[in-house]
Amino acid sequence: MSLKIALAQINPTVGNITYNRDKIIQSAEYARDQLGADLVVFPELTITAYPPEDLLFRADFINEAQAAVNEIRKRVSGIAVVVGFPELLDGRLYNSAILIRNGEKSKTYRKKQLPNYGVFDEQRYFSAYDELCLFEIKGQRVGLTICEDIWQSERIAEYKQADADVVLTLNASPYHKGKIKQREQVVVSQAVEHALPIVYVNQFGGQDELVFDGASFVVNGEGDVVYRAAEFEEHIDVVEFEQGQPQKSLSTPLLDELSSSYQALVLGVKDYVRKNGFKGALLGLSGGIDSALVAAVAVDALGSENVEVVLMPSRYTQDMSNEDAVLEAEALGVRHHIIAIEPAVLAFNEMLQALFAGSAKDTTEENIQARSRGVLLMALSNKQGKLLLTTGNKSEMSVGYATLYGDMAGGFAPIKDVPKLWVYQLARYRNSISPVIPERVITRPPSAELAPDQIDEDSLPPYEILDPILEKYIELDQSAEQIIAAGFSREAVDRAISLVDRNEYKRRQAPPGVRITPRAFGRDRRYPITSGYRGNRYSK
Amino acid sequence: MSLKIALAQINPTVGNITYNRDKIIQSAEYARDQLGADLVVFPELTITAYPPEDLLFRADFINEAQAAVNEIRKRVSGIAVVVGFPELLDGRLYNSAILIRNGEKSKTYRKKQLPNYGVFDEQRYFSAYDELCLFEIKGQRVGLTICEDIWQSERIAEYKQADADVVLTLNASPYHKGKIKQREQVVVSQAVEHALPIVYVNQFGGQDELVFDGASFVVNGEGDVVYRAAEFEEHIDVVEFEQGQPQKSLSTPLLDELSSSYQALVLGVKDYVRKNGFKGALLGLSGGIDSALVAAVAVDALGSENVEVVLMPSRYTQDMSNEDAVLEAEALGVRHHIIAIEPAVLAFNEMLQALFAGSAKDTTEENIQARSRGVLLMALSNKQGKLLLTTGNKSEMSVGYATLYGDMAGGFAPIKDVPKLWVYQLARYRNSISPVIPERVITRPPSAELAPDQIDEDSLPPYEILDPILEKYIELDQSAEQIIAAGFSREAVDRAISLVDRNEYKRRQAPPGVRITPRAFGRDRRYPITSGYRGNRYSK
Repeated sequence: MSLKIALAQINPTVGNITYNRDKIIQSAEYARDQLGADLVVFPELTITAYPPEDLLFRADFINEAQAAVNEIRKRVSGIAVVVGFPELLDGRLYNSAILIRNGEKSKTYRKKQLPNYGVFDEQRYFSAYDELCLFEIKGQRVGLTICEDIWQSERIAEYKQADADVVLTLNASPYHKGKIKQREQVVVSQAVEHALPIVYVNQFGGQDELVFDGASFVVNGEGDVVYRAAEFEEHIDVVEFEQGQPQKSLSTPLLDELSSSYQALVLGVKDYVRKNGFKGALLGLSGGIDSALVAAVAVDALGSENVEVVLMPSRYTQDMSNEDAVLEAEALGVRHHIIAIEPAVLAFNEMLQALFAGSAKDTTEENIQARSRGVLLMALSNKQGKLLLTTGNKSEMSVGYATLYGDMAGGFAPIKDVPKLWVYQLARYRNSISPVIPERVITRPPSAELAPDQIDEDSLPPYEILDPILEKYIELDQSAEQIIAAGFSREAVDRAISLVDRNEYKRRQAPPGVRITPRAFGRDRRYPITSGYRGNRYSK
Repeated sequence: MSLKIALAQINPTVGNITYNRDKIIQSAEYARDQLGADLVVFPELTITAYPPEDLLFRADFINEAQAAVNEIRKRVSGIAVVVGFPELLDGRLYNSAILIRNGEKSKTYRKKQLPNYGVFDEQRYFSAYDELCLFEIKGQRVGLTICEDIWQSERIAEYKQADADVVLTLNASPYHKGKIKQREQVVVSQAVEHALPIVYVNQFGGQDELVFDGASFVVNGEGDVVYRAAEFEEHIDVVEFEQGQPQKSLSTPLLDELSSSYQALVLGVKDYVRKNGFKGALLGLSGGIDSALVAAVAVDALGSENVEVVLMPSRYTQDMSNEDAVLEAEALGVRHHIIAIEPAVLAFNEMLQALFAGSAKDTTEENIQARSRGVLLMALSNKQGKLLLTTGNKSEMSVGYATLYGDMAGGFAPIKDVPKLWVYQLARYRNSISPVIPERVITRPPSAELAPDQIDEDSLPPYEILDPILEKYIELDQSAEQIIAAGFSREAVDRAISLVDRNEYKRRQAPPGVRITPRAFGRDRRYPITSGYRGNRYSK
């Protein structure tokens, strides 16, 4: 007797319960009618999408989610459905998965392991619950788990002891570089340790700073991945179990890290624009590498007809910057405008002349240029209802090499979690598909062009040195001493760390952007702005 | 035999371990030498100050905190000291309180109840620990607790059973309206229930969005508050216990809510400026009520010599606005500058003319005015190293009645958690001490002055209706139906709620500001930007 399990790697929208409910119903019908599935499994908290955050505190929200579950029960027949939803029971809220099957009394599993680290705050919302949930279908005993549960060995061991034939896991596991492999390794090792097949279904889609890559899969009791869904695609597919063993099915090979992180950026932009109802996007194109990459990502996400770029040269802008920006706009097939910022900059300088008389020029004057650009771009965004994309990368965000309300102005920051060296790699990767970024943009030394002959390395360590220091400090929580011991100069380390510390206030006002590293700024790294901690830095 | 316990309501700085350590040592010496105390009790996590957030993930930080505890042990004698610190033990981190006494082996209490709601994320960092910690001093058996522990009855009951004579509690309990009374009621009811005196020591000082009011106190076993430290003051005082009973001591009466919330705003601004090393503050003074109140708060926090205001009239600014702004600047004794924004606005409009040809005027043009002001104020802030204060109130932040990078530009937002009606009350309260805000500023209808004859009520419900709707929706998580049932029109409720929902993206880029309500935007209310939830609103 064979059992067909469908993995519904769908893209729900946080909070849009009606939309998600209908998507679940349609997906279940598709799995039943087109794939002949006996059972369809959806991602964690399917009904609300993940993460619903403080919406979970609202009684009306929880009631509406429960009503959606009831509606699914009413409307779906002929296939068993497992969906995730927030369940209120005796005054406590659980992160639950419910089995709905042809008018039968439903069975509910409640999540035991509630992650409260990194970007996760589940102990803020949910109570933990410690009970197995098994059901039988086509002679197979199936056990339910939710996301974090499967990262611990204990739960799977309990299902094995309870004679389960297969374990299903509902997930909302966000992407970062290396995460897809890491996830598979964990699940494979659980499957092998307990000799149990595991069906892993993940959410797909972008939600504010998080991107869910999908990449659902099935592993057999020997640890072979017998099926893998495409990454970064909405996807419903079926795997057949015979005598309890999942059969080899069409699998998509894993993408390499460059492709997957590029896809993550594209999906992040696409879903932020789509789910928030913007009429496209615009950005300032400077002729530098960062805005070049963001423009390519935007076009790949939204189509060239929905992207618009603006060149805003100043007296410090080199000709090659303008030339390259125009070349890229043409290669991408997007509309471009040119607005010289000189009139606004002159106006501000004159207005401030009396007050600034006698004081030397400093970054104030550079910021006025960047902020004049910010005002122009926001005016275009406001007038057209298009989302303004900012172009800062993670290295810049780390050390504060960006102007608040200037180049940081915008609604979404596609590459804010991409270190500068990775920006170059992604640009080359994108050009390998089709050449859209002029070669000179990639090879010239990076510059903010806010002062004569300025280049980044005048005020920052070279990115080959800066980026690894930042990774150790920000992602690995290493101390200055540890980083120096790894072979970096005290001077470069002190400079980098003190800039990171001093610029927390800027990051706090930055727009959201796609997380692609294991530790992005934001929910992932919660630092005080006011902090007297200097560690063992030389410069106190 | 009498026992003298000192309550050290000090103002440490988050992360500044050396400063905090020295402050603890000096305070202990003062308590010993000037107050004759046998024992001195400090607030929760004294060594690091509260909340240290993700600094707690750094090994160097934890080591340095432990080293500071060791240093205190070495340097302090002749008085028993109880301080809070993050303690690493067998690979787990605890929120601990340690008793240090003349070379004796120290005793450590570890927090059991770890709050993970509201602004608190303690389960992100700490493990819970379930053991009492009792010690004897001058014949009294003293039990230790930390903050949240005392909000549960269980721990106090256990100390009573273990024959404790008094319980000490180390706290970092942030202010909001009503919190001081609430806190006292909880502790008094514990004291009465278990017939045990309780010594409550709270942190004092501002830390980013949080303000710790102090208001430490001692309650006897009958529930009488026998001592209360001043709110909003650094303070070390002693209470004498005779035969286990705390003796009546000089107490400060509780402030009323208006005074205490005004003090909270002043402290928030003062400590943000001081602890972050700014050379004073500046703000735009419009002649409206919000900036009038912020100017008064800034002067009370920093002194008139450290505050500077800027009038930035446009063609829509009424004469009375300028007149009143100048009058207030003079009453406060602060320097004022006047910079008309017309030249910048004209420049931008001309630069955009070609692109905007054929499209109607809308809020884009209003935003250009607000953003031109933002650029000017930020230029002054950058040039002088002064903190730019924004002047938006909570009602505006809620409905998005503010311009991103315009009037929202700045490093700190003193009244971002103050609803508009409360702004008026605080203005009158401040004037009752000395008249600084011109009467006309309080009585004229509020206006953004970004278009001819514009007043807030053109586009918003009157604040008498808006503010209570916002409180129910934001602070109490009520649904539209519930709010309508309380007597508000569906139209006003739908309008208010949809504006709140749609403007999450703006709030995410707002500067930090002082929390004075039970639910401020920020750590306290974590909402997705991308959200399809519309509840049962009429307008979907």
